[in-house]
Amino acid sequence: MIYADNAATTKMSRAAIDAMLPCMEEQYGNPSSLYSLGQAAKDILEKARADVAAVINADPGEITITSGGSEADNQALRTAVALGKKNGKTHLISTAFEHHAILHTLKALEKEGCTVTLLDVHEDGIVRPEEVEAAIRPDTCLVSIMFANNEIGTIQPIKEIGDICRRHSVLFHTDAVQAVGHVPIDVKADNIDMLSASAHKFHGPKGIGFLYAKKGIRLTNLIEGGAQERGKRAGTENVASAAGMAAALKDTASRMRENAEHMSALRDSIIQGLSLIPHSALNGDARKRLPGNVNFCFEGIEGESLLLLLDDRGICASSGSACTSGSLDPSHVLLAIGSVHDVAHGSLRITIGEDTTAEEADYIVRNVTEVVEYLRGFSPIWRDLESGKAQHIL
Amino acid sequence: MIYADNAATTKMSRAAIDAMLPCMEEQYGNPSSLYSLGQAAKDILEKARADVAAVINADPGEITITSGGSEADNQALRTAVALGKKNGKTHLISTAFEHHAILHTLKALEKEGCTVTLLDVHEDGIVRPEEVEAAIRPDTCLVSIMFANNEIGTIQPIKEIGDICRRHSVLFHTDAVQAVGHVPIDVKADNIDMLSASAHKFHGPKGIGFLYAKKGIRLTNLIEGGAQERGKRAGTENVASAAGMAAALKDTASRMRENAEHMSALRDSIIQGLSLIPHSALNGDARKRLPGNVNFCFEGIEGESLLLLLDDRGICASSGSACTSGSLDPSHVLLAIGSVHDVAHGSLRITIGEDTTAEEADYIVRNVTEVVEYLRGFSPIWRDLESGKAQHIL
Repeated sequence: MIYADNAATTKMSRAAIDAMLPCMEEQYGNPSSLYSLGQAAKDILEKARADVAAVINADPGEITITSGGSEADNQALRTAVALGKKNGKTHLISTAFEHHAILHTLKALEKEGCTVTLLDVHEDGIVRPEEVEAAIRPDTCLVSIMFANNEIGTIQPIKEIGDICRRHSVLFHTDAVQAVGHVPIDVKADNIDMLSASAHKFHGPKGIGFLYAKKGIRLTNLIEGGAQERGKRAGTENVASAAGMAAALKDTASRMRENAEHMSALRDSIIQGLSLIPHSALNGDARKRLPGNVNFCFEGIEGESLLLLLDDRGICASSGSACTSGSLDPSHVLLAIGSVHDVAHGSLRITIGEDTTAEEADYIVRNVTEVVEYLRGFSPIWRDLESGKAQHIL
Repeated sequence: MIYADNAATTKMSRAAIDAMLPCMEEQYGNPSSLYSLGQAAKDILEKARADVAAVINADPGEITITSGGSEADNQALRTAVALGKKNGKTHLISTAFEHHAILHTLKALEKEGCTVTLLDVHEDGIVRPEEVEAAIRPDTCLVSIMFANNEIGTIQPIKEIGDICRRHSVLFHTDAVQAVGHVPIDVKADNIDMLSASAHKFHGPKGIGFLYAKKGIRLTNLIEGGAQERGKRAGTENVASAAGMAAALKDTASRMRENAEHMSALRDSIIQGLSLIPHSALNGDARKRLPGNVNFCFEGIEGESLLLLLDDRGICASSGSACTSGSLDPSHVLLAIGSVHDVAHGSLRITIGEDTTAEEADYIVRNVTEVVEYLRGFSPIWRDLESGKAQHIL
């Protein structure tokens, strides 16, 4: 099996599993308990927090451990609005191709009286800093722009956007779920006020993530209750998973440069190979993208059939994000970069990992090419395109 | 080491660990992914949901997997208020000795315009059904009463309260975090509309729990985003922990009767032993309590010193709940059952488990007795009590 859906989730690293096992088997204390077993669990938790913080150049006290990236995104947005409301600021700026954890929270906030500006991400899938600046109003409380897109992998000019926000005294949040552990992030140098991450995207366990919030930002609780996480996130701390998250992040981050070099070379060879398929197109900027991300549209193809046939050939890949895979709607990300409805339906996301080999990359190219050709043989849309009844777009 | 703080957290069962390992090592797919690896993960998740549902006589579709009991409590209360608001119903009934996940959410809801009635729990720590009925108003949207208290272990007349709520067409939620897996629960027979649970209280992993909501109750999202959990709880599903939770619950529940018999016999022998300490008192009803719960007050004692000395002797126990152990305030639970401030400070909670032995129970009694006597030797409060300068209460 070739796993090429690392944007959906990753295989846990040995480092992560090894860090979790002792917590599952022996160090089972509640970190809030006074006795030694509890304090040992607390030590593990606080070491995990410090390890996570170090990777993004944050202080340990700036890391709140959550149940994942979605929770962190929700909490970041609600925090900014709660803080903004004190000064009558309830306008938020984001983009049309954010993850649904952002977009749906923005929708909920609009119902509660906030106003939202969604910026264009252009055909290359890159936000323009000057457009961020132009959208800032006196009542803007937050700019939230993802570090790297989860479908097309495009990396945003985060530092430039952070600078603009800092200059205008507007909070800046970034959903960095796809970026943490894979590309260098320095929250201080990049002027990031809040950042969301999810462990299972960097070979950690599912069900855990974190929200970085710059010192001085008073978080709004999503979950009220006990005094865990400095009173900002109630519930007994998930010590084992926190340890797994930290171990995975340390491990991945320690090889970030080699991983990126290896993966981007393979990525480019896959992009080159798939570009030879007629009437196909790479989605998103070819260079400013995550090292592991390939995303193509193929005319005359229905994405779901493509995935099932690739699965038959042992390739795990996706069309759009896993979070919306049950939906029949075309990807909101591809629509945001200007794809037309029919073409957006025929998209394929291949996200390779650190372990992907050159042989696997070749296998992927060969099999995608064959399956696209095979499926076009049955496609009425393709027949119309080839007979001239319809016009090719790609 | 004698672990006697099972109300704070429990050691994971072998069954739970064994169920998690394959998900951590091999079955790492995202349950939302179409390919076989994803569908295998989905199958594990849905089997876990069905196994959990079966233990409380719910349907699998009525179980929403959350990050724990606190999240489930928050979501239950917010759901009831959102539904109630449609008919102008924003009054909630609860008790003064609920977990903070309930009490603090109620406080937040009050700030948002809701009204709250907190019922008396009397000296025995038991809510009176007739007082629940008397508190119901035309604008009541929810009654939320915990199944068993987390500090004093008293079990509430849930079925009677459920009947009353059903008769008055008021939703009934129970925080059953301390009860699930330990005492029989049948959501249908008990007329429970919503129920919260946490896996780490029944030998499952930390960071996972569930909210049961009767079919037809449309949950309000705490976490917006992807379409996971029928669109009611966004975020990639924590497959490994869900499997661990289900395995732990099945395992514990399968021995529920033997466990209860074993534990309640030991519990009663500890209660009997500690009752011999002069000026001590059991908190909460002696019979209507969880099989593993012992909770005493000792006059002239400061709880924290007691715990630290017991820790030195290898006994893990607590004073109040773990969630508030950093606080210097006396337990709100003990104050709710009428303990005076000074006495509530000197409380000890011993919560034994299935593995606790008769020898361990004896060791606990002997050492608590010695440590209480030792500490009283240094206590100015005790000196005043013994010299007649202050009056004994117990």
